Amino acid sequence: MALRMSQISDYRPTAQGVAVAARKVAEILPRTPLLPLEVEGRTIWCKAESLQPVGAFKIRGAWHRLTALTDAERARGVVGVSSGNHAQGVAWAARRLGIAAKIVMPVDAPAVKLANTRALGAEVVLYDRPGGEDRDEVARRLCGESGATLVHAYGDPWIIEGQGSTGTEIAAQMEESGIGAPDLVVTPCGGGGLTAGLALALPDAAIVPVEPEGWDDVCRSLEAGEIRRVSPDAPPTACDALQTPATWPINFEILKARCPFGLIATPSEIRAAQRLAFAKLRLVIEPGGAAALAAVLAGKVELTDRTAVVLSGGNTDAEAFAKVLLAPSQDSFN
Amino acid sequence: MALRMSQISDYRPTAQGVAVAARKVAEILPRTPLLPLEVEGRTIWCKAESLQPVGAFKIRGAWHRLTALTDAERARGVVGVSSGNHAQGVAWAARRLGIAAKIVMPVDAPAVKLANTRALGAEVVLYDRPGGEDRDEVARRLCGESGATLVHAYGDPWIIEGQGSTGTEIAAQMEESGIGAPDLVVTPCGGGGLTAGLALALPDAAIVPVEPEGWDDVCRSLEAGEIRRVSPDAPPTACDALQTPATWPINFEILKARCPFGLIATPSEIRAAQRLAFAKLRLVIEPGGAAALAAVLAGKVELTDRTAVVLSGGNTDAEAFAKVLLAPSQDSFN
Repeated sequence: MALRMSQISDYRPTAQGVAVAARKVAEILPRTPLLPLEVEGRTIWCKAESLQPVGAFKIRGAWHRLTALTDAERARGVVGVSSGNHAQGVAWAARRLGIAAKIVMPVDAPAVKLANTRALGAEVVLYDRPGGEDRDEVARRLCGESGATLVHAYGDPWIIEGQGSTGTEIAAQMEESGIGAPDLVVTPCGGGGLTAGLALALPDAAIVPVEPEGWDDVCRSLEAGEIRRVSPDAPPTACDALQTPATWPINFEILKARCPFGLIATPSEIRAAQRLAFAKLRLVIEPGGAAALAAVLAGKVELTDRTAVVLSGGNTDAEAFAKVLLAPSQDSFN
Repeated sequence: MALRMSQISDYRPTAQGVAVAARKVAEILPRTPLLPLEVEGRTIWCKAESLQPVGAFKIRGAWHRLTALTDAERARGVVGVSSGNHAQGVAWAARRLGIAAKIVMPVDAPAVKLANTRALGAEVVLYDRPGGEDRDEVARRLCGESGATLVHAYGDPWIIEGQGSTGTEIAAQMEESGIGAPDLVVTPCGGGGLTAGLALALPDAAIVPVEPEGWDDVCRSLEAGEIRRVSPDAPPTACDALQTPATWPINFEILKARCPFGLIATPSEIRAAQRLAFAKLRLVIEPGGAAALAAVLAGKVELTDRTAVVLSGGNTDAEAFAKVLLAPSQDSFN
């Protein structure tokens, strides 16, 4: 059976779809906190998506996508492709809906992400990321075998809408606090699912995606006006959650209309942001989840009085996090 | 001028007072999240007070106390006594209300707590805890000099009521989630301010205080039916927030009526709880803040379907937290 992409190409993500997703998400997930943080005399608002039950915003898109499947589609199961956070989102939603889930994950994913995905009842199928194996190929084969629906991590209209519910919540929380809706949202960006969703959810805000050094395909795509892939010799990055080779057209259409530019955060800036989130917000944030805060702390964004920053995930191994906490001095050198 | 305790002895903490405190707190602080955690097949509800702006529930009592001061009292300032979390709570409330605050803190308090208290604009007065200096004596002297009001960390009716608002929130959050009000609340216990407040807030729940090994004055007081002090040779503990020599009568009156017993958590149980909160909840919890979860994970409490556990604070130094994350193997030996 061929890859079931037909329905994906028929359905376009919209602001109305984000509103529907936000209502569905609100039925099962309490809002994550929006925590104030003082940065150079201003208060910025940090959306702690690390506190979702799976430790990342990915649960939103997965829930919106899986609840949109027909009964026949649910019976055939789903296949996800993910470095870990989307994996756990799909596994969580699938378990809750009684849907069989297979997740294609890289062999070098953080142990905590592999363990948590399995603990949620999903079957993990490993692929050789360091060796360059094409994960979409693996997923396509699995879907072909079983007739399962592919739930792409970012190139999917429901996923985009679901992630956008993060923005709906931020706006509601800032309005209720008397601050007013955000006019600037800085967000970690991997494939562009969350970024595109935020853009749909918040039509009046500037949306700034932040990528890790070397994995700046969205930055370069925005500059070029067309999709660019990361360099084949992209360096290793601690930001496994943002390690995507290229955005997809469904995402880029939205990004190029709404994001004038993207920003890059360096490894030491990201570690500094993780340490600040530890000390000032008492949050465990994974490297990729700290990319937007890193760019803000490094002074790469001109802040406004209504700035929101997404802390997108908190799944990181204890040993890796301990090293980040212990290594502030070495960071002045890179 | 003598210590201003007259009004304290006139005012008794009540459930109605907790309700007032909860309304006052709700006006300025968003609810902290109540996060589900699976423990041996059951879901328990973890109240993440570590996510308060000062990293601990202490902000509640401080706000309730300081807003109850008269204009004349506000003008004379306040003096707090604290290992760090109450310090930050008082400093936060004082800054917001424009009240001068002096905080008596031990020289061996975690650096992060000293730095954060100073950053909130309070004057820190150090006392020699390791050398056995009496902190209440130091506070009394400061109050005598300036006519300032002593804001005791736990032996104060407004502080008790304010901390009790934690329980009001837990009950509201569990009711809204369809679970129903908690019938069991397990909480870290230092001097007994939070524990007494929870007891007032939740008259139908069992309240179980948990203390660190060697600092089990409340456990022993409950057993004896009268206040007992910790042993003069109490061992060092990582739980600086729970390191109180004895509870006060205003707390113990409530505790002895509502807590049949207390529990003790060992250092390795507490580190295990910190690691679990890191991996499963993505929270930074300080040792004292993890004591209740430690007792639960060690199987020392018979869980119900409506169990809440307070994670009371998250102020811990990076180096100390890194050591906790890296040391799981050594913990099997102590």
